Amino acid sequence: MEARNEIFNANYPREYQTWRQTEDTSFVSEFNGSQSVDVLEQRPNMVILWAGYSFSKDYSTPRGHMHGVKDVHQTLRTGSPGVDQAGDVQPATCWACKSPDVPRMMNKLGVSAFYKSTWSEMGPEIVNPIGCADCHDPKTMDLHISRPALIEAFERQGKDITKSTLQEMRSLVCAQCHVEYYFRGEGAYLTFPWDKGLTVEAAEEYYDSYEYHDYIHALSRAPILKAQHPDFELSQMGIHAQRGVACADCHMPYISEGGIKYSDHHIRSPLAEMNRTCQVCHRQSEETLRNNVYERQRKCNEVRNRLEDILARAHIEAAFAWEKGATEEQMQAALKLIRQAQWRWDYSVASHGASFHAPQEVIRIMSNGIASAMEARLEIARVLAQSGYSEPVPMPDISTKEKAQKYIGLDMEQLRKDKERFMKEVAVKWVEDAKASQRLLEK
Amino acid sequence: MEARNEIFNANYPREYQTWRQTEDTSFVSEFNGSQSVDVLEQRPNMVILWAGYSFSKDYSTPRGHMHGVKDVHQTLRTGSPGVDQAGDVQPATCWACKSPDVPRMMNKLGVSAFYKSTWSEMGPEIVNPIGCADCHDPKTMDLHISRPALIEAFERQGKDITKSTLQEMRSLVCAQCHVEYYFRGEGAYLTFPWDKGLTVEAAEEYYDSYEYHDYIHALSRAPILKAQHPDFELSQMGIHAQRGVACADCHMPYISEGGIKYSDHHIRSPLAEMNRTCQVCHRQSEETLRNNVYERQRKCNEVRNRLEDILARAHIEAAFAWEKGATEEQMQAALKLIRQAQWRWDYSVASHGASFHAPQEVIRIMSNGIASAMEARLEIARVLAQSGYSEPVPMPDISTKEKAQKYIGLDMEQLRKDKERFMKEVAVKWVEDAKASQRLLEK
Repeated sequence: MEARNEIFNANYPREYQTWRQTEDTSFVSEFNGSQSVDVLEQRPNMVILWAGYSFSKDYSTPRGHMHGVKDVHQTLRTGSPGVDQAGDVQPATCWACKSPDVPRMMNKLGVSAFYKSTWSEMGPEIVNPIGCADCHDPKTMDLHISRPALIEAFERQGKDITKSTLQEMRSLVCAQCHVEYYFRGEGAYLTFPWDKGLTVEAAEEYYDSYEYHDYIHALSRAPILKAQHPDFELSQMGIHAQRGVACADCHMPYISEGGIKYSDHHIRSPLAEMNRTCQVCHRQSEETLRNNVYERQRKCNEVRNRLEDILARAHIEAAFAWEKGATEEQMQAALKLIRQAQWRWDYSVASHGASFHAPQEVIRIMSNGIASAMEARLEIARVLAQSGYSEPVPMPDISTKEKAQKYIGLDMEQLRKDKERFMKEVAVKWVEDAKASQRLLEK
Repeated sequence: MEARNEIFNANYPREYQTWRQTEDTSFVSEFNGSQSVDVLEQRPNMVILWAGYSFSKDYSTPRGHMHGVKDVHQTLRTGSPGVDQAGDVQPATCWACKSPDVPRMMNKLGVSAFYKSTWSEMGPEIVNPIGCADCHDPKTMDLHISRPALIEAFERQGKDITKSTLQEMRSLVCAQCHVEYYFRGEGAYLTFPWDKGLTVEAAEEYYDSYEYHDYIHALSRAPILKAQHPDFELSQMGIHAQRGVACADCHMPYISEGGIKYSDHHIRSPLAEMNRTCQVCHRQSEETLRNNVYERQRKCNEVRNRLEDILARAHIEAAFAWEKGATEEQMQAALKLIRQAQWRWDYSVASHGASFHAPQEVIRIMSNGIASAMEARLEIARVLAQSGYSEPVPMPDISTKEKAQKYIGLDMEQLRKDKERFMKEVAVKWVEDAKASQRLLEK
């Protein structure tokens, strides 16, 4: 199991070199996927929505595949093991999508044992960022599925993933990671909630049947499902997938160089090179096509913003009701509705590109989110009325990320200090040791 | 001004004969557009939403163009002038879209005078159903705009409609009628609310600037805007119009007969003849394409049903708050929100084909409708709480059209009896006199 991406440069220089472009932060293009934007700063309501969960500390737009390992070191969500008192806050499962060292270590330790170890136990081993052996059999270079969760999800539905066509594989290799998943049980076994279907409702039904939740919300006390990035699931609901277009068709379009034709491994937004993506099928101008995408995004963002605002209010109003002495029984209906609404919000927002992949589906989901979040607020208003409170609930100032984080009680200064020490004292060592022992060849 | 459709049979037999098929009720196809479905029976919530307005009495799916005049005689919305005590409940403006006799009478009387007369005053004159001279200049047979409202709406935006291209005209002749409009002022002058733009928000802003409303809701007392059918406006927001497809391209596809090629004047759903509509551009199978349409409809209908339920509750809860002694001041915010929500609901629902024409736009609109309707309910809950009421508002049984109509106080039996007499004693005479004087040649 060869996890070192550099090894493949010898025989696949074009693929390797385009893959390396996923790191380039100097190249100026908004579609390049290498600049990271602080989303919590843009939309402080999200701090409220994730109160009680690590995403409230830090959430930025994702960068290219070569940043996989570095960005996981850096994010406050992984904590600062070896430095802060909390120690290992995450299981090794958090590495699952970040590196071809993961299947290497799974082979070595066994899948369950890998998941059961902690994030920092695996830290010294997981060093090569998302690359060749994640999607290719290192011997034949055929597309292959290196992660067990997708194979297992297929098996539970009675499907054999090895029977997939090449065109299906050009999406399924992406679906190893770009999906909704959860860490099942104490062993944090990475599992896809697909047993009842690929829709947002089917996944919810699956989770509900286990009474599963990712965290109890720090303000509302609702049992919350945190959505990961259901990119594959939502893309399947849109017209491009329905017409047989694979992820790779738009995100890894062919490059012709002289007599050679190869897949661009600089995976990013198709808007970066529309002549090789959209315009292969669509005859309109770049400007027209880009505006078609922007229009879909604008409409989705409008609904998303309204939902986000409503949902943040619902959490804060629930917290207010608890303060006023509301009982578990009184709050039950509202908390269930908040869970439903937040699941729909997060599923929509976490999915990369959903507003383009499936514009109608994602607004449908968010519409239901708005309805449920507002029904929760109506329930809470009745609960408050029963204790004699009939005014609008006062809203805290959460107009910036800092204010919102302070409101939910995070000590950001300490978290950042710890992380700085972790990067200097721990992460650097993981990387240096790997380089010294030739497990990481990258310079 | 030749209003008699039969006259055109001599020179345009194919167009005339396909136009005649818009009447055929015997031909079995769900896409034929000649079977009428009672929508209030399917969705009794709509009776509640239109309480205080004639649509609560009767609302069925529209039929083909040849049914234009008959269906307006028949609907309970036009009342039973000459029979019931209410007399003329509608202005002649209600005829505006129903017949080429309308431009004929406008020429004769002047436009304002036409609008100012009553529906039954014009009844004996308006006899030929929607046909040739509505869209064609009867002398040259060029496409032309026969109705002043569209020309005037263009003028107010500084645009000269006579400069439109042929392809634009293939939509604009439809836009004479298939649009949102209102009856302005005491003279019931038919006017399009387009001065601020073609979006649902722009039309609302236009109406708000006049503090216009179509009726005061019988339950909630909200000042309601009744949407007509903004088919043209919403179709312009979708990808087909954006790609230059005209209404006629899909609703009047070419027929080839031997060496002759002509536009099918059996205007109806493009799903009826997909080989001549969708499949001209799209290479997928009929089944695939039809399912693509159904999927868009299902998603829209899901959101629509949820909005309809919420909005009906809002009206009923507002009525309950009034009963409990709520003041105008207390109710102001809620009523404004109900107005906003209902405008968005009605705009979406009234627009024929919107779920296909602009699937994302229409769900965007309904999402905002859900949010506003729920915010109204939250306001009302607070108002009720202030008077010491903190329980859910009891809901009446409105599970059928009959129950809902009874709840809002309609005497349907009397309305139907009157209409029956009107049809036998009045409408029949209008038609017979027109035939006797050769103003109507149709048999």
